[in-house]
Amino acid sequence: MSQEDLYYLLGMAGTVAFAVTAVLAVTPKNIDLFGACVMGLVTAVGGGTIRDLILEVPVFWSLDLNYLWVALASSVVAFYGNRLMDRKYVYLLMLYLDGLGVAMFVIQGAEKARLLEFGLPLGPVILGITTAIGGGVIRDLLAGNTTLFMRKELYALPLTVGVVAYMLLVGYFPEKVSLISTTCATFTFLFRAGAIYWRWHVPSWMLIKPNKTEQ
Amino acid sequence: MSQEDLYYLLGMAGTVAFAVTAVLAVTPKNIDLFGACVMGLVTAVGGGTIRDLILEVPVFWSLDLNYLWVALASSVVAFYGNRLMDRKYVYLLMLYLDGLGVAMFVIQGAEKARLLEFGLPLGPVILGITTAIGGGVIRDLLAGNTTLFMRKELYALPLTVGVVAYMLLVGYFPEKVSLISTTCATFTFLFRAGAIYWRWHVPSWMLIKPNKTEQ
Amino acid sequence: MSQEDLYYLLGMAGTVAFAVTAVLAVTPKNIDLFGACVMGLVTAVGGGTIRDLILEVPVFWSLDLNYLWVALASSVVAFYGNRLMDRKYVYLLMLYLDGLGVAMFVIQGAEKARLLEFGLPLGPVILGITTAIGGGVIRDLLAGNTTLFMRKELYALPLTVGVVAYMLLVGYFPEKVSLISTTCATFTFLFRAGAIYWRWHVPSWMLIKPNKTEQ
Repeated sequence: MSQEDLYYLLGMAGTVAFAVTAVLAVTPKNIDLFGACVMGLVTAVGGGTIRDLILEVPVFWSLDLNYLWVALASSVVAFYGNRLMDRKYVYLLMLYLDGLGVAMFVIQGAEKARLLEFGLPLGPVILGITTAIGGGVIRDLLAGNTTLFMRKELYALPLTVGVVAYMLLVGYFPEKVSLISTTCATFTFLFRAGAIYWRWHVPSWMLIKPNKTEQ
Repeated sequence: MSQEDLYYLLGMAGTVAFAVTAVLAVTPKNIDLFGACVMGLVTAVGGGTIRDLILEVPVFWSLDLNYLWVALASSVVAFYGNRLMDRKYVYLLMLYLDGLGVAMFVIQGAEKARLLEFGLPLGPVILGITTAIGGGVIRDLLAGNTTLFMRKELYALPLTVGVVAYMLLVGYFPEKVSLISTTCATFTFLFRAGAIYWRWHVPSWMLIKPNKTEQ
Repeated sequence: MSQEDLYYLLGMAGTVAFAVTAVLAVTPKNIDLFGACVMGLVTAVGGGTIRDLILEVPVFWSLDLNYLWVALASSVVAFYGNRLMDRKYVYLLMLYLDGLGVAMFVIQGAEKARLLEFGLPLGPVILGITTAIGGGVIRDLLAGNTTLFMRKELYALPLTVGVVAYMLLVGYFPEKVSLISTTCATFTFLFRAGAIYWRWHVPSWMLIKPNKTEQ
């Protein structure tokens, strides 16, 4: 299996994870099969769609429908499987797979923008993050959930550190792009997995403190 | 009157219905004339705008401002008329017109994508649904309402069945596209109209059931 | 300093104001540094991004990253400064600067669409308003706040009057575009500044009144 095949497979694994976690996250609500499929699809391909619109390139899923089929099938399975499965363990597994998807997509998104020389060096960072979290943010809006910006879990920091490191390293060692992308994606995933496993929180210096004039 | 003229008129009727139902839906809230016009405009042209952005074609209303003028005028009339009219009957009429608009736009949206050979065969289905419901979803977000994915009425099933049938039939009988589009739009409308009249709900096999581990 | 330099500086001042007001508006909530930067960025460049997507031109910040750097730096300063500053006075100052930004961006956005002959004459009005308020609307959605369409302050009227006057005047006196744009932006700012200072509300004829059949 070539590295490209591996990346494709990992991308599909991330797509499954995004769709399934989306459906598991909304099924406690009063949602039907249609809603579940919309949530699954939007979460899986929403971020990359925004990225491609901003890059002015054809949206990636129009060129490879497998992303849509895999997201749809995963949503349907998660919707019905949800009744049978022990949600707690599946959800935990999906959290890690979501972390894998985020780690893949943040680097892939940045790399796509970088190759198009889009707003170097900050543009690829912004679009990488958009790719990784955009779909989940739209899902939260559609489902009436609080967006991740208001939650306490350590979700955004790993991918931000990963994509900034990626752009810095690729800027200095452009010939090592393949090694750097693998390293940064792995680092991002491990950082996020650690945050899930050990329940890390955002460090206190990155949190707001009550304003003195309001106390 | 040619078939094309008829479609144009029906499209404008759908635009009126989308704008008016949007304003009637938000006027119980503390909204002003500006907000009402934004809600009317967004609902009427929002879905088609997202479709055209994804298709990388000029947004339809930039080429024919009538869609904007009609949506704006309908919003203003609905905003002020709202004080005088008996909302219940007007709203019911508008529900049916909204169903007509949805039935038109889901097929039109899919057809536009199909002619551009966008991600066949699933791409046109996705973009048809986006065209039909995208504006209403954005309106619900802006107004702070629950999106249709969380509501119990039978809204999405008719248009989904209609557009899937359309793509299947056109795939097998490409020379009958005109007949098929009329049939599928009519079917979609009648299905939705029946759902409004007889208060049909989403069938139970498409609903989520409580998870056993949570009981 | 040329007029163009002045406009650039004013645009950056508006960018600072959009980012800082965004962060000050969300910091009472449980948000971290990442969330604050997203809110600041989205508010500062979100409206212009939607405009450029609809216009099918490269998004403005990909051609001049200063908009992103300034928005990011402003967000970080506002996030940490928030702990030290007396929020009330800074917020008031930022409200006026936000008004300046809105006044600049509504005219700039309309002018960009007008030069591209996008859906004249209504298209530039729509896109000017989108440029001015789009970022703030997305921020409110992401932060779970009520969008401005539901609030009572006189926010949208000044910019709407300003941009409609701009398109009318430029239509009649196309050779005076520079004078007209300065005049309309100044008028929009002063109108909004008056609304802040004297706490003007939306005039009652633009508000919805309770429906008689509901009383």
